[in-house]
Amino acid sequence: MIKEGDRENVCWIWYPGDWEVWLHEQISVKRKMREVIYPAYWRLDRHYSSVRFTYTYELEMPEEVEIHTDGQFAVYLDGKDNERHNKQRMLLPAGKHEISVAVYNDVGIPALYMKGEHLKTNDEWKVSCYDKHWYQVGCWPNELNDPKTTPSQYRLETSEQHPVTVEKRAEGWFVDFGKETFGFLQLNGIKGQSDVTVYYGESREEAEDRDHCVLLDRITVDGSQTEIFTLTESRAYRYVQIVPESNDFQLDSISMLYEYLPVDYRGRFRSSNDQLNQIWVTSQYTFHLNTREFFFDGIKRDRWVWSGDAYQSFLLNYYSFFDRDVVKRTLVALRGKDPIVTHLNTIVDYSLYWFSGIYDYYLYTGDDSFVKSQYERMLSLMDFCLGRRNNDGLMEGIEKDWVFVDWADLDNRGEVSTIQLLLCRSLETMALVSQLVGDSDRVQDFQEQALTLKEKIIDIFWNENIGGLVHSRADGILNSKVTKYPNMFALMFGYLNDKQAEEVKKNVLLNPDVQPIKTPYMRFYELASLCEVGEHQFVLEEMLQYWGGMLDLGATSFWEEYDPNQTGTEHFEMYGMRYGKSLCHAWGASPMFLIGKYYLGVKPLSPGYETFMVEPHLGGLVWMDGTVPINEGDVEIFMDSKKIRVRATYGHGILRYEKNGEIRETEIPVDGNWLEVVR
Amino acid sequence: MIKEGDRENVCWIWYPGDWEVWLHEQISVKRKMREVIYPAYWRLDRHYSSVRFTYTYELEMPEEVEIHTDGQFAVYLDGKDNERHNKQRMLLPAGKHEISVAVYNDVGIPALYMKGEHLKTNDEWKVSCYDKHWYQVGCWPNELNDPKTTPSQYRLETSEQHPVTVEKRAEGWFVDFGKETFGFLQLNGIKGQSDVTVYYGESREEAEDRDHCVLLDRITVDGSQTEIFTLTESRAYRYVQIVPESNDFQLDSISMLYEYLPVDYRGRFRSSNDQLNQIWVTSQYTFHLNTREFFFDGIKRDRWVWSGDAYQSFLLNYYSFFDRDVVKRTLVALRGKDPIVTHLNTIVDYSLYWFSGIYDYYLYTGDDSFVKSQYERMLSLMDFCLGRRNNDGLMEGIEKDWVFVDWADLDNRGEVSTIQLLLCRSLETMALVSQLVGDSDRVQDFQEQALTLKEKIIDIFWNENIGGLVHSRADGILNSKVTKYPNMFALMFGYLNDKQAEEVKKNVLLNPDVQPIKTPYMRFYELASLCEVGEHQFVLEEMLQYWGGMLDLGATSFWEEYDPNQTGTEHFEMYGMRYGKSLCHAWGASPMFLIGKYYLGVKPLSPGYETFMVEPHLGGLVWMDGTVPINEGDVEIFMDSKKIRVRATYGHGILRYEKNGEIRETEIPVDGNWLEVVR
Repeated sequence: MIKEGDRENVCWIWYPGDWEVWLHEQISVKRKMREVIYPAYWRLDRHYSSVRFTYTYELEMPEEVEIHTDGQFAVYLDGKDNERHNKQRMLLPAGKHEISVAVYNDVGIPALYMKGEHLKTNDEWKVSCYDKHWYQVGCWPNELNDPKTTPSQYRLETSEQHPVTVEKRAEGWFVDFGKETFGFLQLNGIKGQSDVTVYYGESREEAEDRDHCVLLDRITVDGSQTEIFTLTESRAYRYVQIVPESNDFQLDSISMLYEYLPVDYRGRFRSSNDQLNQIWVTSQYTFHLNTREFFFDGIKRDRWVWSGDAYQSFLLNYYSFFDRDVVKRTLVALRGKDPIVTHLNTIVDYSLYWFSGIYDYYLYTGDDSFVKSQYERMLSLMDFCLGRRNNDGLMEGIEKDWVFVDWADLDNRGEVSTIQLLLCRSLETMALVSQLVGDSDRVQDFQEQALTLKEKIIDIFWNENIGGLVHSRADGILNSKVTKYPNMFALMFGYLNDKQAEEVKKNVLLNPDVQPIKTPYMRFYELASLCEVGEHQFVLEEMLQYWGGMLDLGATSFWEEYDPNQTGTEHFEMYGMRYGKSLCHAWGASPMFLIGKYYLGVKPLSPGYETFMVEPHLGGLVWMDGTVPINEGDVEIFMDSKKIRVRATYGHGILRYEKNGEIRETEIPVDGNWLEVVR
Repeated sequence: MIKEGDRENVCWIWYPGDWEVWLHEQISVKRKMREVIYPAYWRLDRHYSSVRFTYTYELEMPEEVEIHTDGQFAVYLDGKDNERHNKQRMLLPAGKHEISVAVYNDVGIPALYMKGEHLKTNDEWKVSCYDKHWYQVGCWPNELNDPKTTPSQYRLETSEQHPVTVEKRAEGWFVDFGKETFGFLQLNGIKGQSDVTVYYGESREEAEDRDHCVLLDRITVDGSQTEIFTLTESRAYRYVQIVPESNDFQLDSISMLYEYLPVDYRGRFRSSNDQLNQIWVTSQYTFHLNTREFFFDGIKRDRWVWSGDAYQSFLLNYYSFFDRDVVKRTLVALRGKDPIVTHLNTIVDYSLYWFSGIYDYYLYTGDDSFVKSQYERMLSLMDFCLGRRNNDGLMEGIEKDWVFVDWADLDNRGEVSTIQLLLCRSLETMALVSQLVGDSDRVQDFQEQALTLKEKIIDIFWNENIGGLVHSRADGILNSKVTKYPNMFALMFGYLNDKQAEEVKKNVLLNPDVQPIKTPYMRFYELASLCEVGEHQFVLEEMLQYWGGMLDLGATSFWEEYDPNQTGTEHFEMYGMRYGKSLCHAWGASPMFLIGKYYLGVKPLSPGYETFMVEPHLGGLVWMDGTVPINEGDVEIFMDSKKIRVRATYGHGILRYEKNGEIRETEIPVDGNWLEVVR
C-alpha cells in the first residue's frame, strides 16, 4: 500500500460510482455458455458519458499544467464557457479561479488527470452530470494515478503458470494445471494451419466431454499468431483439452496467465488438525479466485455480482484480505443507478443484504466517508423497499419480485419472516448512516421503524409451543412450518433474548426434524449461529465432515453445493446441466469466516476495530494459531488447553476467556506486546 | 412514403425510445466552439446496453430464419436459457414456441432483425431491459428495414452542391455558397503537403474573421487524401475561407455535401405580396435546415434540442412538412429517461412545453398509439413538476431551476403567471392522455386540478384595473408589472372570456407602454395571439417589417434575434461573442405558422383533422393561394376580395367566413371537389 506521503497526490478522477458501474457492465456480459453470450439477467446501468469537473484554485504564479483525459474535453475558466481550450498543456493564470473541464466519452469512463506544480486532480474536485448536483469526484488514488493508463484501461494482474501434466494424444493435448485456476490459456510456438478447439473443465470429466463442457474456445491458427499466443478471454478451469482439426498443427508448450486481484494474505490460520488447516487454505484460495474486479459468485459459470453472495464475501474478506476497495466497488456496482424498479439482482432478500453490507463495512472498517457517500442511494433503495410493504407494514414479494431465501423446498408466498428480519437490520443500517450524515429527522424515524418491526416480528412469527420463529404467514394464516432461516438470522442480529436463543438452539438449530440446509450458502449462517450459541465443537465436526468431504473427493477449491450422498459425476450436475455446478464458489469458503470470527474469536465492538473483542474457542482442537486483520493492524492469537497468547497492533482489544467456569476479560496491550493468560 | 403493402413487414427492432436517446446523445456533443467540444449542459441519458427481445410464434413447418443484430447476441427457445444459439442462420422448430433474443451493445443500439418466410421482427415483438417490465419494441418500419444498415448507422441524406463564387486570393480561397447551408465541405483534387485551416461564416464578416469565427476546421494534407476529400464534420455556413500554410497546397475545386432530412414540402403559399412570399419561402428553408435528426434550435452554434424551441417547431411542422417522425423523435429525446432530477433543459417552462407538445401532436395527427406510449413518462415528469409547487399549489423555480420565459428584462422570482398557465395546459394534457389510456381514476383528478388552477390563476393574477394578467407574485406580493407573456398564453389556450380577451387586446397586446417583445421566440406567440383577436392586418404589417427587415439585409435564413435599430456587424453579436448570433434559427420561421393557421386559417377541431375549420383572412392582401397538410390529406385555399375557394382530400372540414357582416359556415365537400363561396 502506498502511503499518503509516498505519492504525488494526483490521480485520475471521474463521476463517483461511474467507474464501478461501467466495470460492472463490462464484467456482467463475460459469461458464456458454449461460446454464446449469457448476459446478467438484471438491468445493467451505465456511466454518464458527459460530465463536468470543477475546482477553485489559488495560484501565486501562473502555472503550466498537463492535461490527460479519457474522452474529448474542453477546459475553461471562471464560467467563460465560450473561451475553451483542449490542448494537452495549458498555462493557468495566477490568482483565484474556478476551472471547469467538460469531458465526453460514450464508450469508456470520462476521466480527467491534470497535473501542475501545485494544481492536481484529486478527491478535492467536484463533478456533475449536468443535473445541477455536484459531488465529490470518484478516484482510486493508489491504483489509478498513472496518466498513461486511463481508468477504462484498468485490468487485473497476471502471472504465468505452468501445467503439472500435459498428455499428448492422437487427437490433441490434455492438460492438467494441478488445481482450479482462472486466466488466459497460452499456446506457445504454434505452427501450421488449423482450426483448434479448446475445451475447458473444472473437472477432468468436463474437459473430456466435448459436447457438454460449459466453456470452450475456437481459434483459427493461420501463421499470424505470435510465438506466445494468449487467448483473449479469461476462463475458469483446472483441465484443458486442445483439439486441432488438422494434424498439421503443432505447438511447443502450453501455459496460462493466471489472472488475479493483488491482495494481502493478512488472515492466517494453523491448528492441530491438518484437515482443518487444508480447509482453511482451500477456502482462502477459493475466495481469492472469486475476489476480482468485484466479488463474484463463482468463476466458471455466472461470473456475476450477486448481492446475497457478495454479502458473505464481505465477511470472508474481513477475516482474510481486509481489502476495502473490492468491498466498495461491489457495493457501488450492486446498487447501480436510480430509478430502482426491481430489487437488486431482482431478489427481495438481495436488496436487503446490500444494507447489511453497508452496516458491516462501517463496523469493520470505520470508513464513514464511504458509507456517507452512499446515503442518497440508501434512501432511494429503502424508499423502494418500504413502498413494497403490505397493509400490515410487512414486506412481500409483489409483482414479479423473487423471494429467494435459499435453494430449498420453501413456500415463500406472503410474509416471509426472514425477509422481515433482513428489513429490520436494513432499517437499523439506515438509522446508523442517517446519524453519521447528521440527518437527525430521519435517525429517529428509522430507529422507531426498526424497533416497531422487531417487536412485530416476534409478535407474529414466534411460536411459543414450538419455541422458534415460523417461516411465513400468507393471507393472514401463519405457516406452521419452522425453518432454520429466520431463527439463525434473529440469533445473529441479536434479536432474541437468552431464553429464546436457548429454545431456538434446542428446538430448531439442533433439531433433526427441522428441514436441513443443503447449500453452503445458508450453511454459512447456520454454522455461524450455532457458534453464537456456543456449539463450536459441533460446528468443527460439521466443517470437517462437509468441507473435508469435498477435499476427500480431490477438490482444490470449494463448490457451489455438495451432497455427500451423491457419487461420481452426479457431483458436477446442477441446473439441469451435466457440468452446471460451479466447483469454485465464493460461498464455499465460509470456514475461513467461521474460524476467524468464532474460533480465533475476533470481532469489532466499535467501528473500524477501535475497540474489539477476542474470545477464542478451541472447539475440540488441541491448539490453534492465527492472525486476523483488524483495520490498519492485526491481532495474533495462540491457544491451547493451557494458555492463550494474544497481541494486537491496532485498537483497544479485550481478551475474553473462561477460567474455572467463570468468564474473565483482560485488556490486550496497546503497545503490541504479547498478553498471555493461563487457563 | 412506403405504404404498408409495399414492404415485407420486417424491420429492425430495439428498446423503445433508446434509439432516440442514443441519437440525441450523439448529436448533443457535436457543438464546437473553435474546434473545442461544447456538450449540451443538461444530463445526457443513455441507451440500455443489454436487452432481451421476445415473441411467441406458431409455425406449421420448421423454418429457417436469418438473424442480424447490432451487438453480440444469443437466441434461445421456451426459456431454455442454457441452450443458446448465435449463428446468423437458425432453423426454428414447428409448433408454438417463445423465442428470446438477448442482445448486448454498449456503443451503438442493441438491435435485432430476424427474417424467415413467416417469422419476422416487427412491432409485435416485446423487449425488456431485464427490469421485469416488457414493452412493445421501438422500430421505424419504413426507414430502418435494411439488414445491412443497423439503426446505429442511420445518417441523414446528402446531395452535392456547388458554390456561387470562389475567389482565389494570395492566402487561399474565399467561397460563397449563395445562401445559408449545412453540410460537409469538400476539397477536390488536393495536392501538396500542408496544414490547411477552414474558417466558416454564416456572414461574410464571420468567415473573414479568422480570430473570431465560431467554426473552423484544421486538416493536414499529406497526399493520403482521396480525390474528393470530404471533411468529417457537418457544419453550418454560407461562406468559407480556406487558408493553407504552404504555397505547395493546390486544389481543383470546392463543393459541399448538403446534409438534410428528406421531407415533403406539403405546405405551400403564394400571395399578392412578393415580400411576404419571400418571407414564406425563407421561413420554410430556415425551418428545413433546423429539421434534422431532431428539431434543432439553430444549426451553427448550439445544434441542441431545446424543448421551448422544439415546441414551436412542432407547430411549424404541422403547417409545412407534417413529418410525424421528427416530432416523435424530438419528444422522446427531450424527455429522456428517469429519474427526472431537473427540468428538461434545466428550464421550468421547458418541462411544461413538452406536455403541450404531446397535446398538439395528438390534436394534429390523431396518433393515439404514440401519446399512449409516452404516458408513463408523462406521469413521472408531472409528478416531478407537481412536487415543485409551493403551499399555494403554484409552481416556482426552486433550488437551481431556471425560470426562463424569454430573453428579456424580467423578474422571474416567485410565482410567474406564465408558468402557471403552462402548468394548467400540461394538466389538461395529462387529463387527455389518461383518458386515452383508460386510466379513469386519474382523468378526473387531472381535470379537477386543471380547473382549480385555471380559476386560481385568474383570481390571483388578473388585475381588474389594468385589464390583464400581471407577470408574477413573490413572497405574497403581487408584481404590479403587466407583461405580454401570460396574456398571450391565456388567449391562445382559450382561458379568457370574451370581455377579458378584448381588454387584453387593448390594454396589453396593443399597448405601446407594455414592455415590447424582442425575440422572434416570443413574437411567435405574440403575433399568434394578436391573430386570435382578429388583428390580421396589424400582424401582416409586423411580419413585413420585421422579417422583411432581415430580408432587406440580405438574409437567406431567419435569425435568432433581430433588432432593426442595430447596424452593420452589430447584427451578428450575441452572448458576448462577435458572431454569437445564430443566423439560421428555427424560431425565426414563425411566419410559416402564422400564415398557415391564421391567414389560410386552417386548424383541426378534432384529433388528426377528422374535423377541421378553414377560416381564411386576407389581412390586407389582395389575394392568397396556399395548401396546408391535414394529416393524410391536404386542404387548398384560394381567396381574394370576391371569393374563397377551398378543397380538401381528408376529413370533414367547415369553411367559416364573413359575409355581409355575419359569420357563415359551410361544409367543405368530402369528395375532394372545390367549394367556392362568393363574399
